[in-house]
Amino acid sequence: MHFSDRLITAIETKKSVLCVGLDPRLDRIPAAIREQARAKFPGDVLAAAGEAITVFNRAIIDAVSELVPIVKPQIAFYEQYGLAGLQAFVDTLRYAKSKGLLTIADAKRNDIASTAEAYANAFLGAVTAFDETVPVFDADSVTVTPYLGWDGIKPFLAAARTYEKGFFVLVKTSNVSSGDFQDIDGVNADGQRMPVFETVGHLVESWGADDVGEHGYSCIGAVVGATFPEQGKRLRAIMPQTIFLVPGLGAQGGTVDMVKGCFNPGGLGAIVNSSRDVTFAWEKSDKYGETNFADAARMKVTELNQQLRVVFG
Amino acid sequence: MHFSDRLITAIETKKSVLCVGLDPRLDRIPAAIREQARAKFPGDVLAAAGEAITVFNRAIIDAVSELVPIVKPQIAFYEQYGLAGLQAFVDTLRYAKSKGLLTIADAKRNDIASTAEAYANAFLGAVTAFDETVPVFDADSVTVTPYLGWDGIKPFLAAARTYEKGFFVLVKTSNVSSGDFQDIDGVNADGQRMPVFETVGHLVESWGADDVGEHGYSCIGAVVGATFPEQGKRLRAIMPQTIFLVPGLGAQGGTVDMVKGCFNPGGLGAIVNSSRDVTFAWEKSDKYGETNFADAARMKVTELNQQLRVVFG
Repeated sequence: MHFSDRLITAIETKKSVLCVGLDPRLDRIPAAIREQARAKFPGDVLAAAGEAITVFNRAIIDAVSELVPIVKPQIAFYEQYGLAGLQAFVDTLRYAKSKGLLTIADAKRNDIASTAEAYANAFLGAVTAFDETVPVFDADSVTVTPYLGWDGIKPFLAAARTYEKGFFVLVKTSNVSSGDFQDIDGVNADGQRMPVFETVGHLVESWGADDVGEHGYSCIGAVVGATFPEQGKRLRAIMPQTIFLVPGLGAQGGTVDMVKGCFNPGGLGAIVNSSRDVTFAWEKSDKYGETNFADAARMKVTELNQQLRVVFG
Repeated sequence: MHFSDRLITAIETKKSVLCVGLDPRLDRIPAAIREQARAKFPGDVLAAAGEAITVFNRAIIDAVSELVPIVKPQIAFYEQYGLAGLQAFVDTLRYAKSKGLLTIADAKRNDIASTAEAYANAFLGAVTAFDETVPVFDADSVTVTPYLGWDGIKPFLAAARTYEKGFFVLVKTSNVSSGDFQDIDGVNADGQRMPVFETVGHLVESWGADDVGEHGYSCIGAVVGATFPEQGKRLRAIMPQTIFLVPGLGAQGGTVDMVKGCFNPGGLGAIVNSSRDVTFAWEKSDKYGETNFADAARMKVTELNQQLRVVFG
């Protein structure tokens, strides 16, 4: 099934537009998990870190898998622990899939065409080595940077078509300095004057126009930060067939009210990511202590799901 | 020693401005190496691929280590073979360093600040896990995308300062569609009208201005494609203290003549990358066969070094 149809079916089944971000921070993982991992790998702190992350993520996934359509591990938080961290990344993707969740590998990869093809193989497709063709990370989707233009997008689109996967291109990011280049007001190749992020938005919409699923959305999504609601509304208007991945809720300052404009009427067209507020919910909870971190995460997801139901109108 | 001083010392010692790109393509690695690797890991094609890449890269590094200052493995070509491929990436960086070469991890990473910090730790710095702080990939430098603005740059600059490392920000890339966004002619936050890549160039120069080594270059470099010589000249003029990493020579169509404008008078200020033309030089050679691939690479490097000496004036 087309990636966008798989995602929308999951949204409708679970009545949730929430994506849970899995951005593990070792020092905030409950002490019992950390200590067990340390004891299991006494001579290797990176292997112990990978183990603690894996155990923590599995518990979070168990807690939320029936409540949300999709999860998003941010690969930097795994890559920083080297190969052991990346093993945890692989395990997290696999475990999430085994629990019926869709996955976004938040990797913000891209390069010139021949290199972008290698990334597309790694994250979405499969690699041919000797006489076998095998999947590698095998995520359902990946995030991609746009700075190199169409060249770097094509291989991801080819892999998305072949493997029924998707990808999300950075359009307007949630961070404070996202305007440095994204907001430059300029004349694009079509002779139209608009901020750079709007030109990116127009191109993302057109790149995906030939690959639209039954619900009317393409396999190319867009990253649109919750922290810039006006720009989100503008982009929604110029990108009707594009699914938005909206980060920035919670820790970064985005609110449910601020993300409303990223949705189409009826409540489709976007998923909203929350990472730390969900995974470390117990830290701010009076009801749940460290040992009940997974229950705290589940409660936070239930709360966010309820708040986000306003988008369904 | 400051990264730029380490690089310039190596350039002057070896009388070479060439960077050898290590972008392994499994099907072009000599058959003998592939077969040995396959025999060593009969049940695991990805492990065999990683082994073949490691053996091939070590031979190339042995052949060129006394002739060039720096090498650049492109991580996508390793990542596509999963953890086994990334093990080969780690080994390649370590082996290159052990042979006195500087290294660029060509990873084109970036994200919002807290995530960019994790990438900076992974590639340039060290990660703290439990009671230890350990280096991970420990490259001398890394390539970084600019789309997120200053937020995403700061953590790399902090790591570069702490660990005497460097990083290269994509400014004007070598690929055909690099103009899609990079060439948008627009008014930036300073009220100046110029193409986006020139605004990126101005900011890269200013971001590095407080961290200049004894030779007058900062720890923040710029990626400027060989395939756009006019833009390279413009950028050279507006970025006098920035070292350019110039890809695109050879397979992508760039020539020695086209890269001249990327250098400052006297021949410093840039390194020129060649990947496939060096590593697979035997394929186009009458003199060297498959078993002499390393000799062919060495001969190609000698030839490119001679051609590039024109930049020294």
